[in-house]
Amino acid sequence: MSEVANTFKSRIFHDLDFDKPGKQTGYLRVPQSREGGAWSVIEVPIAVINGGNGPAVLFTGGVHGDEYEGQIAISRLARQLDPASVRGKIIMLPAVDLPAALAGRRMCPIDGRDFNRCMPGDAHGSFCQMLAHFIETTIMPQVEVSVDVHAAGNSMEAALCSIMHRVDDPKIIERTQALAENFAAPYNVLFWGVDEGGTVAASAERNGALSISTEIGGYGRVRPDAVRIAERGLDNVLKWMEMIDGNPDTAQPDGGRTKQMQVRDQKSYLFAPSDGLFEPRFLPEQQIQTGELAGYLHFIDEWAREPQPIEFQIDGYIWMAPGSGRVKKGDVMAVIMQDFV
Amino acid sequence: MSEVANTFKSRIFHDLDFDKPGKQTGYLRVPQSREGGAWSVIEVPIAVINGGNGPAVLFTGGVHGDEYEGQIAISRLARQLDPASVRGKIIMLPAVDLPAALAGRRMCPIDGRDFNRCMPGDAHGSFCQMLAHFIETTIMPQVEVSVDVHAAGNSMEAALCSIMHRVDDPKIIERTQALAENFAAPYNVLFWGVDEGGTVAASAERNGALSISTEIGGYGRVRPDAVRIAERGLDNVLKWMEMIDGNPDTAQPDGGRTKQMQVRDQKSYLFAPSDGLFEPRFLPEQQIQTGELAGYLHFIDEWAREPQPIEFQIDGYIWMAPGSGRVKKGDVMAVIMQDFV
Amino acid sequence: MSEVANTFKSRIFHDLDFDKPGKQTGYLRVPQSREGGAWSVIEVPIAVINGGNGPAVLFTGGVHGDEYEGQIAISRLARQLDPASVRGKIIMLPAVDLPAALAGRRMCPIDGRDFNRCMPGDAHGSFCQMLAHFIETTIMPQVEVSVDVHAAGNSMEAALCSIMHRVDDPKIIERTQALAENFAAPYNVLFWGVDEGGTVAASAERNGALSISTEIGGYGRVRPDAVRIAERGLDNVLKWMEMIDGNPDTAQPDGGRTKQMQVRDQKSYLFAPSDGLFEPRFLPEQQIQTGELAGYLHFIDEWAREPQPIEFQIDGYIWMAPGSGRVKKGDVMAVIMQDFV
Amino acid sequence: MSEVANTFKSRIFHDLDFDKPGKQTGYLRVPQSREGGAWSVIEVPIAVINGGNGPAVLFTGGVHGDEYEGQIAISRLARQLDPASVRGKIIMLPAVDLPAALAGRRMCPIDGRDFNRCMPGDAHGSFCQMLAHFIETTIMPQVEVSVDVHAAGNSMEAALCSIMHRVDDPKIIERTQALAENFAAPYNVLFWGVDEGGTVAASAERNGALSISTEIGGYGRVRPDAVRIAERGLDNVLKWMEMIDGNPDTAQPDGGRTKQMQVRDQKSYLFAPSDGLFEPRFLPEQQIQTGELAGYLHFIDEWAREPQPIEFQIDGYIWMAPGSGRVKKGDVMAVIMQDFV
Amino acid sequence: MSEVANTFKSRIFHDLDFDKPGKQTGYLRVPQSREGGAWSVIEVPIAVINGGNGPAVLFTGGVHGDEYEGQIAISRLARQLDPASVRGKIIMLPAVDLPAALAGRRMCPIDGRDFNRCMPGDAHGSFCQMLAHFIETTIMPQVEVSVDVHAAGNSMEAALCSIMHRVDDPKIIERTQALAENFAAPYNVLFWGVDEGGTVAASAERNGALSISTEIGGYGRVRPDAVRIAERGLDNVLKWMEMIDGNPDTAQPDGGRTKQMQVRDQKSYLFAPSDGLFEPRFLPEQQIQTGELAGYLHFIDEWAREPQPIEFQIDGYIWMAPGSGRVKKGDVMAVIMQDFV
Amino acid sequence: MSEVANTFKSRIFHDLDFDKPGKQTGYLRVPQSREGGAWSVIEVPIAVINGGNGPAVLFTGGVHGDEYEGQIAISRLARQLDPASVRGKIIMLPAVDLPAALAGRRMCPIDGRDFNRCMPGDAHGSFCQMLAHFIETTIMPQVEVSVDVHAAGNSMEAALCSIMHRVDDPKIIERTQALAENFAAPYNVLFWGVDEGGTVAASAERNGALSISTEIGGYGRVRPDAVRIAERGLDNVLKWMEMIDGNPDTAQPDGGRTKQMQVRDQKSYLFAPSDGLFEPRFLPEQQIQTGELAGYLHFIDEWAREPQPIEFQIDGYIWMAPGSGRVKKGDVMAVIMQDFV
Repeated sequence: MSEVANTFKSRIFHDLDFDKPGKQTGYLRVPQSREGGAWSVIEVPIAVINGGNGPAVLFTGGVHGDEYEGQIAISRLARQLDPASVRGKIIMLPAVDLPAALAGRRMCPIDGRDFNRCMPGDAHGSFCQMLAHFIETTIMPQVEVSVDVHAAGNSMEAALCSIMHRVDDPKIIERTQALAENFAAPYNVLFWGVDEGGTVAASAERNGALSISTEIGGYGRVRPDAVRIAERGLDNVLKWMEMIDGNPDTAQPDGGRTKQMQVRDQKSYLFAPSDGLFEPRFLPEQQIQTGELAGYLHFIDEWAREPQPIEFQIDGYIWMAPGSGRVKKGDVMAVIMQDFV
Repeated sequence: MSEVANTFKSRIFHDLDFDKPGKQTGYLRVPQSREGGAWSVIEVPIAVINGGNGPAVLFTGGVHGDEYEGQIAISRLARQLDPASVRGKIIMLPAVDLPAALAGRRMCPIDGRDFNRCMPGDAHGSFCQMLAHFIETTIMPQVEVSVDVHAAGNSMEAALCSIMHRVDDPKIIERTQALAENFAAPYNVLFWGVDEGGTVAASAERNGALSISTEIGGYGRVRPDAVRIAERGLDNVLKWMEMIDGNPDTAQPDGGRTKQMQVRDQKSYLFAPSDGLFEPRFLPEQQIQTGELAGYLHFIDEWAREPQPIEFQIDGYIWMAPGSGRVKKGDVMAVIMQDFV
Repeated sequence: MSEVANTFKSRIFHDLDFDKPGKQTGYLRVPQSREGGAWSVIEVPIAVINGGNGPAVLFTGGVHGDEYEGQIAISRLARQLDPASVRGKIIMLPAVDLPAALAGRRMCPIDGRDFNRCMPGDAHGSFCQMLAHFIETTIMPQVEVSVDVHAAGNSMEAALCSIMHRVDDPKIIERTQALAENFAAPYNVLFWGVDEGGTVAASAERNGALSISTEIGGYGRVRPDAVRIAERGLDNVLKWMEMIDGNPDTAQPDGGRTKQMQVRDQKSYLFAPSDGLFEPRFLPEQQIQTGELAGYLHFIDEWAREPQPIEFQIDGYIWMAPGSGRVKKGDVMAVIMQDFV
Repeated sequence: MSEVANTFKSRIFHDLDFDKPGKQTGYLRVPQSREGGAWSVIEVPIAVINGGNGPAVLFTGGVHGDEYEGQIAISRLARQLDPASVRGKIIMLPAVDLPAALAGRRMCPIDGRDFNRCMPGDAHGSFCQMLAHFIETTIMPQVEVSVDVHAAGNSMEAALCSIMHRVDDPKIIERTQALAENFAAPYNVLFWGVDEGGTVAASAERNGALSISTEIGGYGRVRPDAVRIAERGLDNVLKWMEMIDGNPDTAQPDGGRTKQMQVRDQKSYLFAPSDGLFEPRFLPEQQIQTGELAGYLHFIDEWAREPQPIEFQIDGYIWMAPGSGRVKKGDVMAVIMQDFV
Repeated sequence: MSEVANTFKSRIFHDLDFDKPGKQTGYLRVPQSREGGAWSVIEVPIAVINGGNGPAVLFTGGVHGDEYEGQIAISRLARQLDPASVRGKIIMLPAVDLPAALAGRRMCPIDGRDFNRCMPGDAHGSFCQMLAHFIETTIMPQVEVSVDVHAAGNSMEAALCSIMHRVDDPKIIERTQALAENFAAPYNVLFWGVDEGGTVAASAERNGALSISTEIGGYGRVRPDAVRIAERGLDNVLKWMEMIDGNPDTAQPDGGRTKQMQVRDQKSYLFAPSDGLFEPRFLPEQQIQTGELAGYLHFIDEWAREPQPIEFQIDGYIWMAPGSGRVKKGDVMAVIMQDFV
Repeated sequence: MSEVANTFKSRIFHDLDFDKPGKQTGYLRVPQSREGGAWSVIEVPIAVINGGNGPAVLFTGGVHGDEYEGQIAISRLARQLDPASVRGKIIMLPAVDLPAALAGRRMCPIDGRDFNRCMPGDAHGSFCQMLAHFIETTIMPQVEVSVDVHAAGNSMEAALCSIMHRVDDPKIIERTQALAENFAAPYNVLFWGVDEGGTVAASAERNGALSISTEIGGYGRVRPDAVRIAERGLDNVLKWMEMIDGNPDTAQPDGGRTKQMQVRDQKSYLFAPSDGLFEPRFLPEQQIQTGELAGYLHFIDEWAREPQPIEFQIDGYIWMAPGSGRVKKGDVMAVIMQDFV
């Protein structure tokens, strides 16, 4: 994690030449000792399509293993795209946290970490840290644009959207919003004041790349419409970057464009005040108001404790709805988005 | 599980008098030794509302802990119903497998069992077996009607419905369909040839009670509309049984009535032929046809293995859609229902 | 567990001859397949001291692995006792649930069971069941008296005592009280209406043996004074049964005799109404009264929830005090004993 | 487990017709609820080759999941054998305890059981019990001969052999030895006085079938020579039973025949007297003598405790050598076989 | 852990203003992704009572989750203290390692760490590391005095005491002893040569604050007398610092004052030489002598191994007695304190 | 892991004086808090034999806990060697990762790490990290030669050998090969381009010591011949270094000397392309050729998937054979060595 640690060189090996023309599909081999596998490696799938002169883009899926739409869209794109039709370089990692993806879990089952908190990684650290270090130091510096496809996971359902961080430079905000409008999810949500540092998006920003993520899906299942949005979005980005021929299709079902939204502060998050069973009274995209009843927290095991009513703290629209009836104190029961201003 | 074992008497104790008039809320205390709790008990909530002359009904929720709509609707009913307005006896167990309900899991975390495979239970067995034995021998014999509210759980999403078993006596089928039409979920699904024996429904049948279950919900979240269906359904049943005043409200959004459906044989089930990531191309209630593409099974970790197309084997409508992108060989990826004939 | 199952013969083997004169120390070998040990056996220590004509007695310790005083006292007795000084037969199992004893746990780490709920066992069942079956069918029929030394375990601390069940025959009660008075713990507690059936004590009763258990210790540590009480008690029983020379030493520190107490009904048990941190205001042996403040249940993680005062429900003396600050709903926070009448 | 339980009918379903001519490969579908798979089934591979008139035989592999030679030989036979060349019926289960086989473990990861202690099973029990019940009641009654291919597993290495139980009828012993000589492993070992009851072999005997098992392999790896012995053995059995053309090849590398051996009593087993690191001084097949040094038990963590020399208790040959340096008290460190007399 | 890592800013957020007058009760919100809770936070309770001009003090409890007296005393103080009666600032963290406190465990169940080895923490590390970093960098710099209330935990029982480190500056020792005498536990124990660096006490010292810890309790239960000592001690400290009115009550039951003791070197610790069952022959506070029998280590599973006598290595008084009968090689079976000289 | 972290001083304590003449056997005491053992230490055995003037050597075993030959050979040497016969200093750690050695596992059960990836360690890190830091900073700087005895472990079997890294200085290569030839395993294998950094060998190199490791054994069992090779090898090294009298015995069974081999690049490793059951067709030491059939990968659970043939990619000899039938994608199924050139 420290700069000192990063002076070690990566233990990951592979057969790819990032500058070779054509299509290569292969694996990042991450050494991983385990009981019964002293010299085993974890093989993380990677594809590089190199069509010569042009920009470079990174598409990542499966950063969380319980988010599937990006895994499907990116691996399908890697299989189907003809390198002869491409200008520039497309690096695709359809299932970054592969052990988590195979387990259908958010956290990596090898080291128990959330990959999206592990950047910039550590060359001699755990599985996620080694892989994060490789992406931070070997892949990110190659690209101008990064699209990291998330899908809300088991624990939430999202109003289908792309997301971006608020940064200081208004030009970068503007250009990122243009990227998002061309990805063309129904919503694009800008975040204020988030400074995780450990995310793939933060890594892209540190490396000077334009960056969006997405939240298209939820409840840990595969939404057929969200797969379509992911596929169109990636295709659109390549067109917008003039890496393949054609114009982006940015139409929305209601005839409009991607809606620009924002999530500004802690009041946007509704935290569970106790463990319990939360009965929500809303769905994603619904408009809600300050003081409106968000739902009830039930204490199903104690007759002596009445259900607790929960209220919204600001006006807006439901961005994230809860993914499980059972919540623990401090869990997010809703996140509210507002019109971007 | 054997009759011999059942000659032991129940170790469960409680303070309830099932014949006492009025409302009692309390607990079935199931002895459960554990590290740090030598003489602990698990307190399973139970309510009895006894309004004098009239029939007796059992409402159960939380037989699977990751199914919440029934837990909410039944505990709310138990709190709100005035015993003075009731004829007969209502026994309510809003969270039967309480440890599973508190954990938000299908399987009981105490003994690892699926409660709905444990009837008729064993007085000296594990937690689920002891509780099953109590329900089989003490509660079921008291009631004429049993409604067991399920909600599809984490691993599936259902076309919202009640369900019933096919039995030999056509009068019982007819009367059960009437019960289901008065519960008034959008669909009522009849099963052919299922003989689990271990379910709450089977216990009801063994004890001569009319029995429906439901599948209203899915993905392990709480659907606001499904809570409404559960609440209306329980209220309707009480009205239909003339235990409270009023007429059942059985209207459906499309103006019609509950649709009578059936699931007849093994072809109705689409089993995963390998482990993989399943991309479905359908949603619950959608009409599908034999040979139509159900989706693709992706092998996200192996570039050398093409996604495998999956086809439907019969005509019908989607009854159950998959709840997780990741499937294991032998998992159900879809269940098809057909019009009842 | 059923009679049918018991028609299988025991899989346990050993080298002991229960009728051979002299001292034998050896093992009951219980077959137990595990990963890395296909044909392994668990070796449960057993000693038989056979001094010819006279009665037979069974001393058991370590039925719960977190109760140590009996393990120490019985294994010391087995090592030190000279068979030439003994009349009759002493069978000693110092650590019945050996895997639990080696782990310092209440529940058997092999099969997750509480051994003292497993009698009469099952010849083809799990580890505890196989061993219980052997004790029920091979050992218990040999003895006239059974003393099962418990010590309250990790989760409680006891007012040091022997315990016995209330049975219908007053002569057996009387004779068991005489046995207890000669064991000479500070208290002897009689239980009303307990019918577990699965305990070693119940097995003794089924087999027509006189039976006491003890609760001498607590908190999972070894109390030096409780080891002394156990040692004197076993020695006293042998003297009282005239199996060794000498008169029982039944003196108590206050100059009196063992106090005869009882625990009569459910009101004697103080169950935790919620999960929380329980602050008791009492110690074992203290006198308490109905309505007196037993302590506070704290909800340390929620500022919004005030500590809940807990009151005693009957008069009496503290028999069991809680062993851990953290309690779960349904845990026993205290048990009250009253003078035997 | 009891006869009472066995009155339930099997919950396992399949598409096979055991009497249909030709080759069928399919699955026994064992219902198995789990988190994330409410209605999942475990698909246990089964093949039936039916060539019309002739006897019936059962070949089973993977009863223990860490024994691989049988899984390979039987599934290869099932794929390659032409039903047109077969007389009678061959039922093949190459990986009986499939979850254990996929995990490479002895014990079933679903229910923690050793499948070979689960016969005759229980129709409403755990995974192994349900499957055992199906084999006991549906498959065994169909066959005259049963060959259950084991391979010593992770925890031991065997002198490659077939094994059989001593039974009372000398004609059955003779006929079983003939079967074993035609299977033609280097050794055939007869066991005295074993009465597990729970094994596949015991099930065959209960059902009146001739039965051998094998132990060809060890240390959990795949021995190329042991695969060859398994393949030849199964082929030989079919020839000996005249189900396929040809004569059995029973030659041994030394020009002789299968050696008939026996394991007669408990002295044949060398149990570890303490936990430790066992340094053996022998290999399988080696001749050893009473009192000879078998090895040293080291206590690597305690300088104060000298290594303990271990001696053999009878004369004979090493049949089973230990599979792991670490042993626990009661583990088998060696089993000795002697010439059959 | 490194200085480099500490250049990241804390991810913890909260609503408190440490300089605002009056009482605030709230939470430190520590982001913690988990399965089923992508954006969850752990809410660590904190209270700040700010009465204007005066010194600042930090009271911490629940640094180890199995030590309860501090949790009770500090949360009660936070609820009951009137800010109008206070001069200066009191920061109270009644349950620092909240997940451990709710689990009743020493080690944090989130990351498996002992919080009291995690200072100075890491802003991008695990739960304990993030929280340690916040306390080290945000809270400790604010205070002049730190009292960290421990209670010996599940694995030991203490002679009730405060403890302090030996530091080089005799004035700091003197002033810390004065602090301890005003806290007024029965004993105050000074440690020689401990340099953990990772403790809360070490953090206080690094930040220039006067620091004591305590060990008041043991065996993981709540001692009523220890709660009283904690409550009086905290009240006394506030009086001694003149933050509230009144004089400290430092009387001891024997009429004397807090006894000043010390633990000087490794001979003070009695380590278990093997795994076994330890039978102690002493209690906390008892005087013991070099060579005196401390107890016996029993090997309950091996008849061939005699119990091993254990002797004390120095003169002194029992400070820590063992909490469990079962010990592992290297466990502490006793710690001896001596008069401070 | 970083240099910053290494500024903390070691928390490990011990009673050894590395410069004291004679033999000392004792323990490195590594503080390790756990549930039930707040102040416990892990006692790692260490012996120092100091015979005055002469060089210093380090012998390590049990760096992986499932490799036993070194544990046996080194602890036996430590017990048997007379310090009066020694010149110089021998430091012996027979079971470095003691918790792993006691568990018979590769990975440390305390922190889940592979000790041989943990050098140079961290004074405030986990168990392996603390111990690695101590060896790196306190032990390695004392010695001129390091021999780290490995034995392939549970997951592989080796052609019995010593191993060494290729370094830039040809004189060091030459001298290391001389060391290896005097250790006199059947093979000595030189590795190209490995830069783990985390191994004991790498630590030796960093500290300027001559270094070999070994791989003598496999499958997790103890090979009697491999114990002899280890014992002779250590004795030989002491003779070659003139630390004891006598000449090394370097004879091989075939009359020749240790064969010098090499493993040059990634083609030497045969990685599993999918999860499956691997049937190898070779044994260690066998000569193989490019394109030759290495074995078949079986998919035992899917009739629809044919076994996949696997071919060797280079010529050479089998160095490592697989240890388990079950392999996971990315596991090593074979490693090929070639003649050293």
